[in-house]
Amino acid sequence: MADKSEKSNKLKPRLPRGLADRSASEIVVTRQMIEKIRAVYELYGFEPVETPAIEYTDALGKFLPDQDRPNEGVFSFQDDDEQWLSLRYDLTAPLARYVAENFDTLPKPYRSYRVGTVFRNEKPGPGRFREFMQFDADTVGSSSPAADAELCMMAADTMEALGIPRGSYVVKVSNRKVLDGLMEAIGLSTDKNANRRLTVLRAMDKFDRLGDHGVRQLLAEGRKDESGDFTKGAGLDARAIETIMSVFEPAADADNKIAQIDLRLKNSRIGQEGRAELEAIRSLVEAAGYSDHRIAVDPSVVRGLEYYTGPVFEVELTFATETEDGSPRFGSVGGGGRYDGLISRFRSEPVPATGFSIGVSRLLAALEYLGKVDLATETGPVVVTVFDQDRIADYQTMVAKLRHAGIRAELYLGSGKFGPQMKYADRRNSPCVVIQGSDEKARGEVTIKDLIVGAELAKSEKGREQHLQKQAQAQRSVPEAQLVEAVREVLARHAGR
Amino acid sequence: MADKSEKSNKLKPRLPRGLADRSASEIVVTRQMIEKIRAVYELYGFEPVETPAIEYTDALGKFLPDQDRPNEGVFSFQDDDEQWLSLRYDLTAPLARYVAENFDTLPKPYRSYRVGTVFRNEKPGPGRFREFMQFDADTVGSSSPAADAELCMMAADTMEALGIPRGSYVVKVSNRKVLDGLMEAIGLSTDKNANRRLTVLRAMDKFDRLGDHGVRQLLAEGRKDESGDFTKGAGLDARAIETIMSVFEPAADADNKIAQIDLRLKNSRIGQEGRAELEAIRSLVEAAGYSDHRIAVDPSVVRGLEYYTGPVFEVELTFATETEDGSPRFGSVGGGGRYDGLISRFRSEPVPATGFSIGVSRLLAALEYLGKVDLATETGPVVVTVFDQDRIADYQTMVAKLRHAGIRAELYLGSGKFGPQMKYADRRNSPCVVIQGSDEKARGEVTIKDLIVGAELAKSEKGREQHLQKQAQAQRSVPEAQLVEAVREVLARHAGR
Repeated sequence: MADKSEKSNKLKPRLPRGLADRSASEIVVTRQMIEKIRAVYELYGFEPVETPAIEYTDALGKFLPDQDRPNEGVFSFQDDDEQWLSLRYDLTAPLARYVAENFDTLPKPYRSYRVGTVFRNEKPGPGRFREFMQFDADTVGSSSPAADAELCMMAADTMEALGIPRGSYVVKVSNRKVLDGLMEAIGLSTDKNANRRLTVLRAMDKFDRLGDHGVRQLLAEGRKDESGDFTKGAGLDARAIETIMSVFEPAADADNKIAQIDLRLKNSRIGQEGRAELEAIRSLVEAAGYSDHRIAVDPSVVRGLEYYTGPVFEVELTFATETEDGSPRFGSVGGGGRYDGLISRFRSEPVPATGFSIGVSRLLAALEYLGKVDLATETGPVVVTVFDQDRIADYQTMVAKLRHAGIRAELYLGSGKFGPQMKYADRRNSPCVVIQGSDEKARGEVTIKDLIVGAELAKSEKGREQHLQKQAQAQRSVPEAQLVEAVREVLARHAGR
Repeated sequence: MADKSEKSNKLKPRLPRGLADRSASEIVVTRQMIEKIRAVYELYGFEPVETPAIEYTDALGKFLPDQDRPNEGVFSFQDDDEQWLSLRYDLTAPLARYVAENFDTLPKPYRSYRVGTVFRNEKPGPGRFREFMQFDADTVGSSSPAADAELCMMAADTMEALGIPRGSYVVKVSNRKVLDGLMEAIGLSTDKNANRRLTVLRAMDKFDRLGDHGVRQLLAEGRKDESGDFTKGAGLDARAIETIMSVFEPAADADNKIAQIDLRLKNSRIGQEGRAELEAIRSLVEAAGYSDHRIAVDPSVVRGLEYYTGPVFEVELTFATETEDGSPRFGSVGGGGRYDGLISRFRSEPVPATGFSIGVSRLLAALEYLGKVDLATETGPVVVTVFDQDRIADYQTMVAKLRHAGIRAELYLGSGKFGPQMKYADRRNSPCVVIQGSDEKARGEVTIKDLIVGAELAKSEKGREQHLQKQAQAQRSVPEAQLVEAVREVLARHAGR
């Protein structure tokens, strides 16, 4: 009973929902991926800058509208002077604060990149975390469409640097003003229609999953899903629905797509502005040799963030896969757009800016799916076993010798006998163990046990001669002075694994 | 007036106290340093693991004693189910949670390392931040002094891998039980003397700054500093003060130091336990060839954290420098020790553990001081200037060509004329700019302007012939098809800079 009650008094080790630990292999492949992305961004002249995880809530623009209380979606707490602080929700708002604070000393236009975790105080779900990593690149101080076009090309180059074949990804470009023009065309541009506009945008965003018919239902009266749940629609009339659905119409190429938009938006000033910006980006990427196949005009792109003011882009992986939400493709791994208003919250003059953000874990999942990350089990460290606890200094000296020769090596630090030590070496994926019992010690020798050959030997049924040869490789005694050399031989034997 | 009032309505871009942005050069040198540390840790068989920034407050052990309120030193907030969450205060408590949660699947002993930022809700000061980076290594599941000795040797190897010369650092080893024994010897070991013990430890910790006399004052009645402020002392008698001060007595070598301790603690069981552990570590590091000069027994080491249960270590940089707090040496850049109780808060069996933590920015400051980081201004990207906004697609195509040849290059994305563009290139530390005005275009040429040679030319007073030669280098027109080649020539010219 005493034991039991003691046990129940113990704390339960657990993480809050939506948070996750990262294992060695995940850390290693993430690092490899980040290095490749970084190399592309550096080639484009972007330079690193990083901001803290904590900012003033007002600097992030995360107060609830007309209230002195932070938005529920962000983790917030009060400082000792009662000012509200929040964990950063994305990397864009902190960059806006940084640029505004250091405006006079930064080169302009200012290209920068950053990688870091962001925090969302939202309901977690499969693949949806409350802390996750983003990799952002932004150009501040240029209103030129060339800045947007450059980000699209950089996104395409990044996908290819990561090994995603051409044709398996597409950078889609649209423009927020084209969507505004569509809303104007169907009479939803006034303030009182804000909610209906949102319903329309949400419906458009589901095209991949629900297809033409489903989206039309959501634009009209509504839609009942398989579970019987009914989602109320936007209540548009047939003509308005046709206007909206036109963005999904296939077109022979970008020129034709832009001509389609032109037609639908001929009476909308804002729509025409968007069309012209789209055309400018299109001609820049075409001139630089990026085909429609890599960077495509696609007015159906809806990016959720309210702060976008012009071009928006999205990188979509187009290969077929089974995803959780039932859509036929892997989907978006990053996106961005122009946010000309974000920095001018701090400054009296306008400061144009455009940026692009990669969802690190989502992109990593895609690379794993494509087999483009090297998850092959790395060879573990050499393990020096402990036969005699009194002689641990001798064993540690052997380990030190191996390490100084640049060989990854460990002393067994547990209290187990030979069996557990061999099991430990196995767990560590060791290529070989080093053994020195009293017999070897008396002869001034060490035994090197090749665990890989040993495992092969245990499985195979080779001829006698081969068996003997393997056996000699599997376990071998050498003079102590030849320890490093003998271990190197084993490592060389398995170097190609 | 209208303008003015608009300006005052703007948000002020600012960071909360004790938080800092990190510039490109700081990020680059930190990355270089972390890679070097990582290489040493990998060689020792440690593998990476990372935990989130947010944990349950109780998992971190950060509730105020006997209260349901988190300690003021940590940033805390309630989850929507009202459970308290906190930002991690260090990397050790989260590791303890991780190991307890994954105990059955981890290899044991388990060697791991991690780098990440931690958060302290404390009063910031010079060099004291509320968010800062730590680099930790820990061995869990081994009670062997070999595990502690290994961490000390790894710390020494790390210092040398970073270029800190032997003799300019020392890894000091002590044992919490030796301090406990000293407290026992002077009659302060009971619970009611907890505050006096703390006063004694704080006094000992100031030896570097205040010297022998100052510490003796703080152990006796107290001390008045230069500003006239009086710090109350521990009120020890002369004999007790001698016992405490013995830890600072010089000794010929570690053996003599240990003999000193033995003498002072001959009647303390806990003190003798500490002495024996210290001796075990000492003999292991000696056998592995680490002299007193690199890893030294020093019973004066006081590490603040309450959770240490045995060996404690501290890496001190011993070269002379002027520091903010007036101590004559650079001081501690890392430390750690054994914390056998931390994981057993979660589990019914004891789980021994020992770890070592580096303060990243403090160590980086030391490397900068020693000139061991490469802060040399990197050559910036090639800048393609824009002479004619209508031909921006042509310029962008040139940039794309350079990038595809692996040359870091940028298109000027601003709206400035030639002057601002050259100023921008200067700001970016560009080796050269590419120019194509209408004249060059008509001839099918581009001009490459070497900014480094150009700057030399402006300064120097060379002979006519040399001047002409330099001038030819400084600005040169080539056929458009030779753009990449010509830029490569400039880069090669300055490669050795």
